[in-house]
Amino acid sequence: MRAVDIIVKKRDGGALSREEIDRFVSGVTTGTLPDYQASALLMAIVCRGMTPQETAWLTDAMVHSGSRVNLAAIPGVKVDKHSTGGVGDKTSLILAPLVAACGAPVPMMSGRGLGHTGGTLDKLEAIPGFRVDLSLAEMTAALTRVGCAMMGQTREIAPADKVLYALRDVTGTVESIPLISASIMSKKIAEGIDALVLDVKTGSGAFMKTEGDSRRLAESLVSIGCASGVKTEAVITAMETPLGRAVGNALEVIECLEVLNGRGPADLIEVSVALAARMLVLAGVASDRPDGERRIRAAIASGAGLDRFRRIVEAQGGDPRVVDDYTRLPAAPARCIVPADRTGIVTRVDAELIGRASAALGAGRNRVEDRIDPAVGILVTAKPGDAVHVGDPVLEIHYRDRGRLDGALALAGRALGIGDTGPAAAPLILGEVH
Amino acid sequence: MRAVDIIVKKRDGGALSREEIDRFVSGVTTGTLPDYQASALLMAIVCRGMTPQETAWLTDAMVHSGSRVNLAAIPGVKVDKHSTGGVGDKTSLILAPLVAACGAPVPMMSGRGLGHTGGTLDKLEAIPGFRVDLSLAEMTAALTRVGCAMMGQTREIAPADKVLYALRDVTGTVESIPLISASIMSKKIAEGIDALVLDVKTGSGAFMKTEGDSRRLAESLVSIGCASGVKTEAVITAMETPLGRAVGNALEVIECLEVLNGRGPADLIEVSVALAARMLVLAGVASDRPDGERRIRAAIASGAGLDRFRRIVEAQGGDPRVVDDYTRLPAAPARCIVPADRTGIVTRVDAELIGRASAALGAGRNRVEDRIDPAVGILVTAKPGDAVHVGDPVLEIHYRDRGRLDGALALAGRALGIGDTGPAAAPLILGEVH
Repeated sequence: MRAVDIIVKKRDGGALSREEIDRFVSGVTTGTLPDYQASALLMAIVCRGMTPQETAWLTDAMVHSGSRVNLAAIPGVKVDKHSTGGVGDKTSLILAPLVAACGAPVPMMSGRGLGHTGGTLDKLEAIPGFRVDLSLAEMTAALTRVGCAMMGQTREIAPADKVLYALRDVTGTVESIPLISASIMSKKIAEGIDALVLDVKTGSGAFMKTEGDSRRLAESLVSIGCASGVKTEAVITAMETPLGRAVGNALEVIECLEVLNGRGPADLIEVSVALAARMLVLAGVASDRPDGERRIRAAIASGAGLDRFRRIVEAQGGDPRVVDDYTRLPAAPARCIVPADRTGIVTRVDAELIGRASAALGAGRNRVEDRIDPAVGILVTAKPGDAVHVGDPVLEIHYRDRGRLDGALALAGRALGIGDTGPAAAPLILGEVH
Repeated sequence: MRAVDIIVKKRDGGALSREEIDRFVSGVTTGTLPDYQASALLMAIVCRGMTPQETAWLTDAMVHSGSRVNLAAIPGVKVDKHSTGGVGDKTSLILAPLVAACGAPVPMMSGRGLGHTGGTLDKLEAIPGFRVDLSLAEMTAALTRVGCAMMGQTREIAPADKVLYALRDVTGTVESIPLISASIMSKKIAEGIDALVLDVKTGSGAFMKTEGDSRRLAESLVSIGCASGVKTEAVITAMETPLGRAVGNALEVIECLEVLNGRGPADLIEVSVALAARMLVLAGVASDRPDGERRIRAAIASGAGLDRFRRIVEAQGGDPRVVDDYTRLPAAPARCIVPADRTGIVTRVDAELIGRASAALGAGRNRVEDRIDPAVGILVTAKPGDAVHVGDPVLEIHYRDRGRLDGALALAGRALGIGDTGPAAAPLILGEVH
């Protein structure tokens, strides 16, 4: 079996065998398959697609390029949530402590932000001292002690994905549902979970711009999870507008603490409770979704979620006092208010433009190696449907560098629409796949 | 302009601009474009195609990756022929001396055989002493002295093609009409010719298996040639059966000398005269095709073509006595006759299988670095339509190594069909494009 024959088979629209896919992934992992052959095969996969069976084999081969973590020693159904990424998408920091407080262990391996989307690790690192680089032993210890570990991927997790992801980024082969599915699910399956709720974002601020593509991705992800013995459900949620009001790392941590305090924006609460309730059902803690939602709302009302958050921060080396004193979080030295340029109803706040504006301030990365500034970001003070008068604040920009502010304003200025009539009511939760 | 943006544009079916194509080719030539990006773009081109305009720009960029030879100092219209490759396809050695003898200069840069197809350079090197590695100065000297130069490509000719060809070979990106067209035409345009006749082979022994694909390739090649100021015509010829009777390097040289002596197989004469006459018309030596054919047949009858072949051999360091004494050519030590296994009419002699059998004997290469044996090969002693009795010789295998003979017999045995009725008459020349 020569590599070129595998490439030609896929190029001509054929379905690869399990052996051919294993050969590809092991060649990538060991470095024996030259990059130029791997990239030609990736492009052929982008152009010709993969069957669900091929995608499942690819995922399995990527899982087995490293280790599948064994969490059998931790009692209970281990449950995680994964989002395909959005702007102001900070639900992980809310639902991990809530779900853990309700009794389901949450081993959560997350990623960093890239482009206009944020990343859970960057948000956690806005908390002084918070360590996300846990070893597998530290992960197990944190799960035992506080029922939750929030961390980056360890070296053991799907090493083939690291190689492929770097290659896809520079060869125009990112946009492929089979490749995206295998990349996401190989990492989730390898982290040793029993159940998974996926939040597939759709819209301007998401990777998938249309509901049809989001549904196809959700179906692909759920099918792979179930084939690997992980109970998997997906929720398709809107990402035309930033979720909540805060975009930027420390600002988003504060907003999460507000939600755990029983305050915070309605849209963020709605999505967080919906995802968390599903996690409780999959974990066997709640009998059904209404029971799950009731338990989650009770954990907010009792302060159990907030308390769990404090314990998680402490367990991972962070300063738990931030929970009660937001001034202990990094803050930007300057603010700039963007006023409404007319009286009317806010018709749109474009998620992608706000995300890019926030990244331009330094809150995100354009390249993997960029350093981020945890303090800067944007508060969206008027959301679609809100009535505003000319001069009312619509955006509050937290910045450090004047030059960067100008770049951010140019983007953010285009993000807002104000009209005579409000936008049609749009649901936040667009669908589900299970 | 980032390389990844060019890749994504082609992946999504867009047409590249001249600037984007130039950027790609110069990156390939200078080595600044990583192989993995070049191969991803090549695969996207295979999957999404290229417009005629993109293909012309690609060809032009590949020509300008090196030098376009200037042959203005040589009087007359410089004319060449190029074949897309076949089995027993030896017309270059016949028509180059004939066309030169009729007064048109023939600067002919050729390639080597690969897989089941032969190459002109390998055939010429079967002549003891014949040098195909002429410099551009030696090329000009040979053209001035004998009106013809038969040689390999020099380093100056389309260096981007060398890099791309090697990469395409190992990344499953050979089969693409735009890429094949640009590869062929960049080399032909760069060699400094004014006119070109293309022989696009179609059938089992050819690269293009169907007449439709062959016609599309022919149209692409002719359109590029004309856009670059080279008068270009294409003839589509059949390659289901080996051309002539000889397959293998020294055996093919002998068959060419037979044709130049006014003997030789009818099919080989027909194709050679048709191509040579077109070359004379494009070169302005003949007024029309019948005039061209008359001149070519006269050059055979008078011995002018044979004499010119002798002078070409001498000019390029070869032993001219081979022309009159075939025993001075390499000969295989042993022969094996394959007899007809029944009485009837030969229905087919499969070109690809005969080509692979000949390569198995050592007459061809499976890999670029393989060495070939000029002496070995196969004589097809019964052609489709011939009546045979059981036991009559149908193939004569010239071999050196007993083990290799077995491999060749296994392939050649499957090449022949004998039935009760002969095959339908099939034309040799299937069409033309100009």
